Amino acid sequence: MYDFEFHNPTRIIFGRGKEESIGPLLKDAGLAKVLLVYGSQSVKKSGLLDRVKDNLGRRGVSYVEFGGVVSNPVLSHTRKGVELAKAEKVDAVLAVGGGSVLDEAKAIAVGALAEGDIWQFFTGKEIRAALPIYTILTLAATGSEMNGNSVVTNEETRQKYNIASPLVYPKVSILNPQLTCTVPADYSTYGAVDAIAHVIEAYFTKKPGTRLQDRLVESIIKTVIASHNVILKEPDNYEARAEFMWTATLALNGLTPTGVGDCSFPNHMIEHSLSALYNIAHGAGLAIVMPAWMRWYSRQHPAQFERFADRIFGVQGAEAGIAALEKWFQEIGAPIRLQDAGIGADDIEMIADNAAGLAKLWGIDAVYSKGVIADVLRLAT
Amino acid sequence: MYDFEFHNPTRIIFGRGKEESIGPLLKDAGLAKVLLVYGSQSVKKSGLLDRVKDNLGRRGVSYVEFGGVVSNPVLSHTRKGVELAKAEKVDAVLAVGGGSVLDEAKAIAVGALAEGDIWQFFTGKEIRAALPIYTILTLAATGSEMNGNSVVTNEETRQKYNIASPLVYPKVSILNPQLTCTVPADYSTYGAVDAIAHVIEAYFTKKPGTRLQDRLVESIIKTVIASHNVILKEPDNYEARAEFMWTATLALNGLTPTGVGDCSFPNHMIEHSLSALYNIAHGAGLAIVMPAWMRWYSRQHPAQFERFADRIFGVQGAEAGIAALEKWFQEIGAPIRLQDAGIGADDIEMIADNAAGLAKLWGIDAVYSKGVIADVLRLAT
Repeated sequence: MYDFEFHNPTRIIFGRGKEESIGPLLKDAGLAKVLLVYGSQSVKKSGLLDRVKDNLGRRGVSYVEFGGVVSNPVLSHTRKGVELAKAEKVDAVLAVGGGSVLDEAKAIAVGALAEGDIWQFFTGKEIRAALPIYTILTLAATGSEMNGNSVVTNEETRQKYNIASPLVYPKVSILNPQLTCTVPADYSTYGAVDAIAHVIEAYFTKKPGTRLQDRLVESIIKTVIASHNVILKEPDNYEARAEFMWTATLALNGLTPTGVGDCSFPNHMIEHSLSALYNIAHGAGLAIVMPAWMRWYSRQHPAQFERFADRIFGVQGAEAGIAALEKWFQEIGAPIRLQDAGIGADDIEMIADNAAGLAKLWGIDAVYSKGVIADVLRLAT
Repeated sequence: MYDFEFHNPTRIIFGRGKEESIGPLLKDAGLAKVLLVYGSQSVKKSGLLDRVKDNLGRRGVSYVEFGGVVSNPVLSHTRKGVELAKAEKVDAVLAVGGGSVLDEAKAIAVGALAEGDIWQFFTGKEIRAALPIYTILTLAATGSEMNGNSVVTNEETRQKYNIASPLVYPKVSILNPQLTCTVPADYSTYGAVDAIAHVIEAYFTKKPGTRLQDRLVESIIKTVIASHNVILKEPDNYEARAEFMWTATLALNGLTPTGVGDCSFPNHMIEHSLSALYNIAHGAGLAIVMPAWMRWYSRQHPAQFERFADRIFGVQGAEAGIAALEKWFQEIGAPIRLQDAGIGADDIEMIADNAAGLAKLWGIDAVYSKGVIADVLRLAT
């Protein structure tokens, strides 16, 4: 095992109706005024937003509404949120929504206490302060509810970049699986793909050894597959939604890569270019990139892929495992080739060029040159 | 899944030589004077204590030494620590040792800020404050380094009771597996038994379902067995010590019982009487109690035991799984019957009487009457 530090201070409140605790929580924390960040229609239609506002009002916590966060949240909107948070002098940020809403809310929490433009933190500047962040999650997928990451897309430069800081771990995240029962099948599927992507990056790119971490990852993947298969048949199945929700949180809360040493996130790197350039759902992009990357990478490192095949799908050989995952992606309605998302092979050079920029920022450009990225993408045609 | 809250704020610093970070850590936290709690000889002989003191000294952090914590830490000594902490007005408690040292240090941290006797908190009084707790772990077993529990024995009343509070989670725990390489075989074995006991209590006593949590527990048990088998052959094997150390921490940091609903700790309850009455090692007592309890409980709830048999040992049927675990306990040198620890069958009534007191305090006396506890103990003869 490699040396590591682990510190995840987020408090999770999980279960039916738990969003009702938000007012008392904020009140007890001495917070008088929050920026209430959300997306567009779904939290209004479901009545959740009204219930949250009512709950805050009853506890004397005032709020400033900031809706309109889009899937793959964008920098221009984030900047407006920062301006509003500064102008209104809010004490905290409350995100009500899925991973996109949470990610944008985190960036706003940083920007609200910073001089200058928020994008500087996405390109390397150290984060020194952030408003306290609270979340009510409505879509299980990104793990943002229990980690210190945020991903935002700069529409001008077409860069989908991230920040990572201990300061943007939510103080409290409220996870009520009931709120995810209305998530449509396609977005549930993208969430399942995303959760798997979060654990397999380190699982495949780390050094051999660390059996405990391997087992934790396998536990997560098997549970994602089992629970998502139920969700597609029975969207209202609370048990399956709950199981999936907590599993997706654990998939990216820092636990599974503890002690595994250096590892990289090439699938996320390449996918970020797909969603930055084509605005497709992150999980959809990952379903396209993953089988391709796995085929490319397994040629050099077959052992862990053989283990994956055996442990997850009970089949023998690296290719059989990859094919089984790809087949499952197809069965659950995820795209698995670029053309499934309407992306032509002619765009590969341009996508690779975009991804190479992120590879450089993440320090993995020695392995992931533009040429290598294009090779991977050609396996997705 | 049942509703739950999860919040584990302890920061883990894991790896070779990491105890060297203790001085800077305390200094950065603004702590000027700590109570340095330890056991008896081993941390002196190994030179660890001198290194820690030197490290504190160089950073200008002063300390008051409080050694002499015994295995199964006792109330009389804890009270002395509380007196010393109050008299010396320390800012924090630094525990250097195994689970016993950490547990006593936690109790002292509570007592130092409380009026009246520390034992009142072990018998139900709510904990309202505690000094910040820092730990350097030298023996992997109890999980105390990343949880809010502490167990202390009242020698007068022969009660081994516990406190549980969010206030006694260590702020930082330093885990250097190298420090555990000198732990003798018997205590390494007791640690392995203890770690398994921590996860199987909920695994067997919870309601069916919660597949993720089942898999996490199975991952932990399999890793404990695999790593401990290496440790017994190669005590200096860093990888095995590291794997075991982190696994033992995760075995009781609150993760595995998330969402499983009501569960109980009957093995710990009964064992606490054995170590309170005979001062045997906690892990040794658990190795005696567990197979007996499992045989008793599996008669009423066979399904999860069949799963355990299959998943952990690849054998079929509840009894085969229990027998396999018992055989492994024997192979690694743990006692498996009362007489192996020199305890006669004539004592069973007396032990059951003691354990029944704890059953009442823990609210499980409806199931665990004195008669039932005696029945379980008779299966350990």
